[in-house]
Amino acid sequence: MICLKKALNFNGHLTISKSTYTKLSVDVINPNVVRLEYAVRGPIVQRAQEIENSLKKGEKRNFDHIIRCNIGDCQAAGQKPISFIRNVLSVATNHDLFKSSIISEDAKLRANRFLDSCGGSIGVYSQSTGVQVVREDVARYIESRDGLPANPNDIFLSSGASEAVKLILQLLSTGLDGSKRAGVLVPIPQYPLYSATNAEYNAYQIGYYLDEANDWSLDVDQLESTLKEHAKQCEPRVLVVINPGNPTGQVLPASVIRRVLEFAHQHNLVVLADEVYQHNIYTPDRQFVSFKRVLHDMGGSVAKELQLASFMSCSKGYMGECGLRGGYCELTNFDPGVQAQLYKCLSARLCSSLLGQLALDVVVNPPQPGEPSYESYTKEKNDVLSALQQKATLITESLNALPGFRCNPITGAMYAFPQIKLPPKAVETAKAAGMKPDFMYCLKFLEETGVCIVPGSGFGQVPGTWHFRITILPPIDQMKVVMEKLEQFHTAFMNEYS
Amino acid sequence: MICLKKALNFNGHLTISKSTYTKLSVDVINPNVVRLEYAVRGPIVQRAQEIENSLKKGEKRNFDHIIRCNIGDCQAAGQKPISFIRNVLSVATNHDLFKSSIISEDAKLRANRFLDSCGGSIGVYSQSTGVQVVREDVARYIESRDGLPANPNDIFLSSGASEAVKLILQLLSTGLDGSKRAGVLVPIPQYPLYSATNAEYNAYQIGYYLDEANDWSLDVDQLESTLKEHAKQCEPRVLVVINPGNPTGQVLPASVIRRVLEFAHQHNLVVLADEVYQHNIYTPDRQFVSFKRVLHDMGGSVAKELQLASFMSCSKGYMGECGLRGGYCELTNFDPGVQAQLYKCLSARLCSSLLGQLALDVVVNPPQPGEPSYESYTKEKNDVLSALQQKATLITESLNALPGFRCNPITGAMYAFPQIKLPPKAVETAKAAGMKPDFMYCLKFLEETGVCIVPGSGFGQVPGTWHFRITILPPIDQMKVVMEKLEQFHTAFMNEYS
Repeated sequence: MICLKKALNFNGHLTISKSTYTKLSVDVINPNVVRLEYAVRGPIVQRAQEIENSLKKGEKRNFDHIIRCNIGDCQAAGQKPISFIRNVLSVATNHDLFKSSIISEDAKLRANRFLDSCGGSIGVYSQSTGVQVVREDVARYIESRDGLPANPNDIFLSSGASEAVKLILQLLSTGLDGSKRAGVLVPIPQYPLYSATNAEYNAYQIGYYLDEANDWSLDVDQLESTLKEHAKQCEPRVLVVINPGNPTGQVLPASVIRRVLEFAHQHNLVVLADEVYQHNIYTPDRQFVSFKRVLHDMGGSVAKELQLASFMSCSKGYMGECGLRGGYCELTNFDPGVQAQLYKCLSARLCSSLLGQLALDVVVNPPQPGEPSYESYTKEKNDVLSALQQKATLITESLNALPGFRCNPITGAMYAFPQIKLPPKAVETAKAAGMKPDFMYCLKFLEETGVCIVPGSGFGQVPGTWHFRITILPPIDQMKVVMEKLEQFHTAFMNEYS
Repeated sequence: MICLKKALNFNGHLTISKSTYTKLSVDVINPNVVRLEYAVRGPIVQRAQEIENSLKKGEKRNFDHIIRCNIGDCQAAGQKPISFIRNVLSVATNHDLFKSSIISEDAKLRANRFLDSCGGSIGVYSQSTGVQVVREDVARYIESRDGLPANPNDIFLSSGASEAVKLILQLLSTGLDGSKRAGVLVPIPQYPLYSATNAEYNAYQIGYYLDEANDWSLDVDQLESTLKEHAKQCEPRVLVVINPGNPTGQVLPASVIRRVLEFAHQHNLVVLADEVYQHNIYTPDRQFVSFKRVLHDMGGSVAKELQLASFMSCSKGYMGECGLRGGYCELTNFDPGVQAQLYKCLSARLCSSLLGQLALDVVVNPPQPGEPSYESYTKEKNDVLSALQQKATLITESLNALPGFRCNPITGAMYAFPQIKLPPKAVETAKAAGMKPDFMYCLKFLEETGVCIVPGSGFGQVPGTWHFRITILPPIDQMKVVMEKLEQFHTAFMNEYS
């Protein structure tokens, strides 16, 4: 658009000129932002949203609603929130409820204790690291989980675990001022928050393969060879481990964690332990063991030196309170000066949501035996976890019954990540259409059945193998329908492309 | 610490070696993080916390508690939350309350409307840009405020305004891959979120002075000469304006905003309008006018081209809901591709707090005449705003009555930023102690009276001038005490150093 205007130039002369204003385009904005990708909310999910909108407008399809198996959003899949958490939050928010019998006395006590610590209202800013009593309760939770001391000053509260992960990766990033970029070892397949954040902070990502043939275990030889291959192009600095695994659903035994920590110590790495699924364990023979616990048991220089950051969230587990944005990070063995820099960085974003902090407080300090809400809390928690356990088995078995599918047992977390053998004709068709074959598979599955899953290429996979991630969150009756739809779709797909 | 250990080297040989693990120190972490400063929560505030802890332990001082005038934290200063907001939040959180008469029917309706739009629970992830009905309500609020159309798709919800500011500055940052760093024009004095974020994303900050002699107005000649001075060292890209001003309390008239927008258009700048204090206006002759409204009125190429991002929050105004972390940003004239990149970036942090989104929804869509809560809402809102207005006058007058003080009228926002003439002996004493003189003044004031304020050097000021920022948030009786303490302290200080 051309427009004449009056303008003073730098020398103060009045000039008449066309508008020379140029809007910023994608090629001149922050290239790190352009490089960032986040598959969990990528094109397939956008297409699901479009289909949902068109269904609402009356479009006819083989299905009348979208089933979202793309994201770990428990309550969106129909899971009921834990009543006690909601009772505590509502009375802390609305103080008139302290007089009401709708709210149990133990919920009132917890709300009061939180309010006493934060200054009387959930409308205040807390300390940047979070409300003192919550950090103390988190420390006690860790102490009781690990049988080890924990210090509230080494714990900070965050907006979900995601914010804490981003803050730590930002802190450890380099590459400015001519220095080498920080190398960050990330599992393949991974939860794409890590690749997105590495793009955002210009870190050098080093993908290491999880061992699919061995229940997605973590093989230290693989870590060694991958690191060796990339060590010269960057300054290796961080090792990310997700346990229980996302999208892979495995739970690591202490022996593997120990070898991983030895490797990290030997190569001078900071370990980021994403432990947000620590409540989501579905087999009695594979309990959750924290990285911190194993680190302590190793003793010696490793236990005293290795820098570890562990992440936890109130979005997963049995509570699934994604929308409240509560989370924490515990730091072990960090240099106090570095920790102070991190806490300074936290202060510029003021604090995380106070209600997210309070929800986390209930999760780490649930009602105890003898308290009025103990039984209902325990029952609600166990109901969610046993339903997840049942679905973990159902889905593993259903997937493995399909020809060309291979799915490791889901021993933890909330996802299956099956491998599909796709016929060459399907691979060629996809390539001709400019799509990855697993993307094409998931897109066709969505278009034909209304079920939304995410292709393996969004998480990473061994080249030439194809996967997808599917959550186990919808109610069991719906999951059975999803498995039936998948069987029909897959049979037709294989017929079409064989 | 030295420790013998067994280790496999890269060639697979077993070696016995000392531990060579080196913890990361401040000099090797992200230098942008190290450079970041945030005065509102800096050393004086940390010292206030230490004193408060020692008072709790029984230490005797001239005062028995800290009065926090350092931060715009309304409810921490004793302001009551708006009951209707809390009613809506509590029933959306705890659905048992839908049956209770404690909650008004219009609060229930608003909660239900939000729940219908987000999927039935505040525990879900929303769309990355925020719940649809909230963005629609924000658009209607802007339409009604400005008398202009607004598009919900150009609005995204954020964790307070701070997160949105950071996201936009990140998006517009450059300096990687050999390109010039993006130049960001920031007022001096400024709210330190801007300098902190520029440090974080390696932007080149260009400070332009506000005109203290002219009620902290914004002088375009000053913008021109400042830009000219710095234009070669960077790629000038962004102009930040805070209106009403923080820490300066001025409200810009439309005529000034118009000249600022002309300047930005001429120099190809994106304008960031921090308008979070738009409800905090204390003089009838200076109403709030939005940047968007003025931009529209200019017409021609400016109105059609100039890229504008406007920020709003539920932490300020009359509601002061800081802890809920609700905010929004409206984009005008952004390139759709760039906007898509920003929204992709939002998706990796999933979403902002659903309860923060809901609180913002009430702020932009408060009870209307005829609704049960209209009168109580309006009364509570007006009570807060008229008390702030009263304190704005009291504090301006009290400060100007002190010898050596000069304070512009507080026409908006929540702060005074008086200039103090400090005697040369005080300046020398401070310098000898390695402190800035205004820092020494604020520190002594804290130590002797328990009142916490922030030195002007944290916000920026003309070299050789000294200021502090003080909030007007504590109740009026407490503010009178603060002013008396300041008078006594200042008299003694001047006696000591004259």
